[in-house]
Amino acid sequence: MQGPTTTEKIALADWAQSIQQSTIQQLLAVATHPGHISFALGLPAAELFPIEGYTQATLQLLQARPNALQYGMPEGGLKRHIVKLMELRNVSCREEQVFLTAGAQQGISLIARLLLNAKGTVLMEETIYSGIVQAIEPLQPRILTVPSDPRTGMDVDAVVSFVEGGERPAFIYAISDGHNPLGVSLSLEKRQRLVALARRFQIPIVEDDPYGLLWYNDEQVQPSMKALDADWVFYLGSFSKILAPALRVGWLVVPEQLGFMLSALKEGSDINTASFAQRSIASYMDTGLLPDHLIALRKEYSLRRDTMVRAIQKHFPESARFHPVNNGMFLWVELPAKIDTERLLNTAIEEECVAFVPGSAFSMGSNSYASHCMRLNFSNCNAQRIEEGIARLGRVIARFLAD
Amino acid sequence: MQGPTTTEKIALADWAQSIQQSTIQQLLAVATHPGHISFALGLPAAELFPIEGYTQATLQLLQARPNALQYGMPEGGLKRHIVKLMELRNVSCREEQVFLTAGAQQGISLIARLLLNAKGTVLMEETIYSGIVQAIEPLQPRILTVPSDPRTGMDVDAVVSFVEGGERPAFIYAISDGHNPLGVSLSLEKRQRLVALARRFQIPIVEDDPYGLLWYNDEQVQPSMKALDADWVFYLGSFSKILAPALRVGWLVVPEQLGFMLSALKEGSDINTASFAQRSIASYMDTGLLPDHLIALRKEYSLRRDTMVRAIQKHFPESARFHPVNNGMFLWVELPAKIDTERLLNTAIEEECVAFVPGSAFSMGSNSYASHCMRLNFSNCNAQRIEEGIARLGRVIARFLAD
Repeated sequence: MQGPTTTEKIALADWAQSIQQSTIQQLLAVATHPGHISFALGLPAAELFPIEGYTQATLQLLQARPNALQYGMPEGGLKRHIVKLMELRNVSCREEQVFLTAGAQQGISLIARLLLNAKGTVLMEETIYSGIVQAIEPLQPRILTVPSDPRTGMDVDAVVSFVEGGERPAFIYAISDGHNPLGVSLSLEKRQRLVALARRFQIPIVEDDPYGLLWYNDEQVQPSMKALDADWVFYLGSFSKILAPALRVGWLVVPEQLGFMLSALKEGSDINTASFAQRSIASYMDTGLLPDHLIALRKEYSLRRDTMVRAIQKHFPESARFHPVNNGMFLWVELPAKIDTERLLNTAIEEECVAFVPGSAFSMGSNSYASHCMRLNFSNCNAQRIEEGIARLGRVIARFLAD
Repeated sequence: MQGPTTTEKIALADWAQSIQQSTIQQLLAVATHPGHISFALGLPAAELFPIEGYTQATLQLLQARPNALQYGMPEGGLKRHIVKLMELRNVSCREEQVFLTAGAQQGISLIARLLLNAKGTVLMEETIYSGIVQAIEPLQPRILTVPSDPRTGMDVDAVVSFVEGGERPAFIYAISDGHNPLGVSLSLEKRQRLVALARRFQIPIVEDDPYGLLWYNDEQVQPSMKALDADWVFYLGSFSKILAPALRVGWLVVPEQLGFMLSALKEGSDINTASFAQRSIASYMDTGLLPDHLIALRKEYSLRRDTMVRAIQKHFPESARFHPVNNGMFLWVELPAKIDTERLLNTAIEEECVAFVPGSAFSMGSNSYASHCMRLNFSNCNAQRIEEGIARLGRVIARFLAD
């Protein structure tokens, strides 16, 4: 058996010396503890999974296609369904521009490795989904950050001033709707300005859009950035939030000429996206059940969002600030500056068995804005648990404020 | 819509400028053409997939576990089954040393990214599975190569002389059994010498073993290198060849202390290995059907191997040389030096609708040894098609020799 001494002797790549266990990994354990209420992770509601339809589709597939478990080329049928889904994001694309991935995270990782040199530059918000950093950190990148406005999203003026100052990042990472962790949707004017900038300076935008199809008010839906420019926006979609995360299937919509490069990189990474998962999703979508499923998800998640909003208004101190969201799974709450939400989390788990993600988990570099903020997921718990969990959190916050 | 001019303007990472479409991707299309007989790819036999057992296990899972489609921690039940499977490779390990991956290819990619710096050094054979090169090429590595003996495998003397000359590769890539593409099993003496070298110079061996459980003569089975040293051998296993490739589940057995680093790298790459696939394989293995399935695979594949050996002896020229194999899916055939097997392949596909992989697809650097060789897969076609396909190939070879 190996002892710690052996491992210490293993020469790791330079970047790997600084790997730390991720907050999300640690919180996944808490999330599944039965006595706890967790608002921590971006989990969809398991009770809403279309188990029956998916089971029927899978059975049918296994019975009808003897090659269902064999290697294969990316599933054309699935790509055609994705082309139709993209119309809901105002994107008109062709099958040849759709590249299947093991979830949107793999899309980020592949695109980053295709565009970014070791020690190259990436531009993103200073409060952002930690997965983008995990995807690029083996390349030891230089990261330029800009602030975000909680009502209109990414500070595009700050982006402009980097670019006008001569910066040429390999790409700009952006989330148009249901921002993780801020919940915000980027204003249309900012989308237009960002896309114009990308086109003018030939800097690709990587548009991460796992929550784009989960909108709660039809009138507030906006076109994705990909809809505004087909050339310089590389789009990332996912079935994780709209169907089931355990299948790990997502997609990229990219200029067709990048396809063979992505294929080569993907083949070296994991050969291909699980053909059985591709086929089973295509088979489920063939039944025509997805549109109604999406409607049902939007209805239930918007109720949960409303429940959480009311519960926060009732149980959190008046000084807690947050903004309405029209997409996704998250509310972002800013507490009084004296509250360190990392410490708050420890107490919340220990004393009230309730969890969230502290803002610092999404902070780039030395930015301290998020240290008194929290991300709350509203999709995973039903209304009763949301009410109960927010009440518990309110008690912990009140004790911290009184200290 | 974007034109080629736009893509030309997209600034790619340096390594990506030289990406070419892979031979394997191109051949996958041929393999699935109904009129063709393909010995090209490493495909298992679809008609041997345990469809019934797997369907039952999947149904049971979907009915019994409402969370079957939800995100989750790596499946402990599956890891326990893998610990038992590893005993068949003479490896005694613990659940905590098993790390689940999206197939063995992802294991290669993750381990490589963990150990190898950009422009670092890797040691491998000069005729080798092209996936190792695809996994590392984004890191623009320096590759040291050694020849292989068709009967005993990797030239360990050549490895020793590199290391004694001062080379310290980040790792040595090796395939113990059913070598891809050579079919050879590394001799026990060479395994022992390699492992001793790894230990002495603290150079990890990455042991790629997707074919280790597919052996055809019990008496010729040898322990994996991992069985000879738990510290310096990192083991890669896969369900692709023993169960079904379309699920994309494999595993690493590594020192436990590497686990959290692999988790962080994996999370950045694709979050986790598809939980539903993990759970469905665990559920299938719970039925206890895998050992009998393995026995059935070994029986049928050894028959196919024997059929192919006899067919080659009958239809190929006497000057064709090949060696018996005890594992895996491939025979490696060396034709007279005047035959360029890339050209042969084109003619074989066009005139006789039969395919194989030309040796050059597995050649590192400027090594020309393999240019008159071919890799033949014997697992995917039944005996009748093997007989027919080898007869067709024999005709093409005869015409080339007569030219």
